[in-house]
Amino acid sequence: MPQGGEFQIIERYFTHEAFGAWRSRGVGDDCAIIDTGAGRLAVTCDMMALGTHFLPDADPEDVGYKALAVNLSDLAAAGAVPRAFFLSIGLPRRDDGWLADFSRGLMRLAEQSGCALLGGDTTRTAEVKGTRAPVTISITAMGELPAGLGLTRAGATPGDDVWVSGTVGDAYAALKYRWGEWDLMPDAVDAVLARMDRPTPRNALGEALLRRASAAADVSDGLLADLGHILERSGVSAEIDWEAVPVSTALRSMTIARQHEAALTGGDDYELVFTASPEKRDAVLEAGVLTGTPVTRIGRVTPRAEGRVVVRTAGGLPVELPKAGFDHFAEK
Amino acid sequence: MPQGGEFQIIERYFTHEAFGAWRSRGVGDDCAIIDTGAGRLAVTCDMMALGTHFLPDADPEDVGYKALAVNLSDLAAAGAVPRAFFLSIGLPRRDDGWLADFSRGLMRLAEQSGCALLGGDTTRTAEVKGTRAPVTISITAMGELPAGLGLTRAGATPGDDVWVSGTVGDAYAALKYRWGEWDLMPDAVDAVLARMDRPTPRNALGEALLRRASAAADVSDGLLADLGHILERSGVSAEIDWEAVPVSTALRSMTIARQHEAALTGGDDYELVFTASPEKRDAVLEAGVLTGTPVTRIGRVTPRAEGRVVVRTAGGLPVELPKAGFDHFAEK
Repeated sequence: MPQGGEFQIIERYFTHEAFGAWRSRGVGDDCAIIDTGAGRLAVTCDMMALGTHFLPDADPEDVGYKALAVNLSDLAAAGAVPRAFFLSIGLPRRDDGWLADFSRGLMRLAEQSGCALLGGDTTRTAEVKGTRAPVTISITAMGELPAGLGLTRAGATPGDDVWVSGTVGDAYAALKYRWGEWDLMPDAVDAVLARMDRPTPRNALGEALLRRASAAADVSDGLLADLGHILERSGVSAEIDWEAVPVSTALRSMTIARQHEAALTGGDDYELVFTASPEKRDAVLEAGVLTGTPVTRIGRVTPRAEGRVVVRTAGGLPVELPKAGFDHFAEK
Repeated sequence: MPQGGEFQIIERYFTHEAFGAWRSRGVGDDCAIIDTGAGRLAVTCDMMALGTHFLPDADPEDVGYKALAVNLSDLAAAGAVPRAFFLSIGLPRRDDGWLADFSRGLMRLAEQSGCALLGGDTTRTAEVKGTRAPVTISITAMGELPAGLGLTRAGATPGDDVWVSGTVGDAYAALKYRWGEWDLMPDAVDAVLARMDRPTPRNALGEALLRRASAAADVSDGLLADLGHILERSGVSAEIDWEAVPVSTALRSMTIARQHEAALTGGDDYELVFTASPEKRDAVLEAGVLTGTPVTRIGRVTPRAEGRVVVRTAGGLPVELPKAGFDHFAEK
């Protein structure tokens, strides 16, 4: 689920005093964590639009894949096992070719992840003459958690290590490449674009971290923005060692300023950023090995300070940070 | 969840062989009914758009109310107790006045029904210059069912009675009135418009019918269309006595052709149409009394015949039926 300015809309207008038999333990997290009385569920809900989350001419098969992947990634951040999802599509007219391609990408990932499509709805959105009105996709995904468990953004304490899975920044570099603003090494183009179009949700790692990590989020808004959400909810700060931040070879070939911009503030990587006690270092590395997911220790949690995150180079100098995070409703 | 042409889009492109640990017992029903291993859930998902489901200038407070009401109505058709919902809104720009009004209508019904908003997302949809791009709303609502129970559209058998709650046709008459096509008696205008803008989901009745009805659906597409979904899934037919169909005084004052059109084929009433064994007549009437919901016996289930539904007048003559059901993607 979203954070930042978008989330504040939901928070501002739709948060009331708690009522009803089901409460969420995860308000402000990637998932709502709900005790139903009979079990514990993680539920997430993401809406995406062509032209906002996807380039207007995006391959519909990629759109289908990614629409589910970002929801699975939210379940991964909670450590939940994906079980079922519900799909809404708003489109201006029935376009069978688009739907068939979209479905192929979506259902392939659904089957791979054991997350069944158990319901859905389509609706015609108002058409504006002479234009292709936006395609809107909303997915609500549900996962299962063991009683009493579930990763949230709260729980990081000073002294914890900060970790991240995989590499960060490639999805942002791919976007910049598509916009014609950045160049990529010719032999890296396909791999970098795949990171944007077909991100790998880290569900196996998330499940393995359930008893190992103290807090977690997925990297959708950007490494610093999403780590910032953990720090804010946990009431702590953090120091990050820039040289430890894992970036791909393709990104390493760029200027240091672009590396900072992509790896620290670029979104859409769908890696997991998480914290864990230093006693759990071996256990976290083991979780990475068991699930075939690279995990890298990139810093440490510190007591609450004015600046939420400081990123330092090996020389100890702080990295000057570009403006972080992505907000669909921010004024430009 | 939707039926008809809309549903066929989901069915055609998104139905694969079952996989994963959670299966739905209710494919093609108002809700997915899911055994999670630890309990039984009913889940429904509806997407709505201004200009398609709502008039473009609809009062946002009504839009908020009704967006949740139609989902609660799906839970009512399954007999589930509403517990939680997730909300996605796509809008071209942040409009605080619209959101505040929308939220007021939505959250009032949420509190009344004990159905908590546990997550959500907002996204900016592409804006088309000089126009107000459509507002899209998607809600996924979850309810709780006792183990082994849950009403679906399957289960009607020949000899069962056909019942409907409340009155049908007013929402359709209201739409015709707003379009300037039909007149309403001046003292009936407010009441009829309220049936369109603020339909009453029949959750208490639905829960009471869990052990009494054999099949159920909510009246969203129209009485005959939704009864037709029950008959199709149950592999049976039905005869309806026109004179028994409950319509409001306002509708009774119209021509018989308009009464037929509104009550039999008009959608958006959000009453429950259901079947029950004749031995359950007293029990069904009791459910109506206990929940303060009028229930009317309007016909009987017959063995499968070529025509799904026959509607007869007291004289035994069949009523000529207007084309039934509503499909956002049907060619006009």
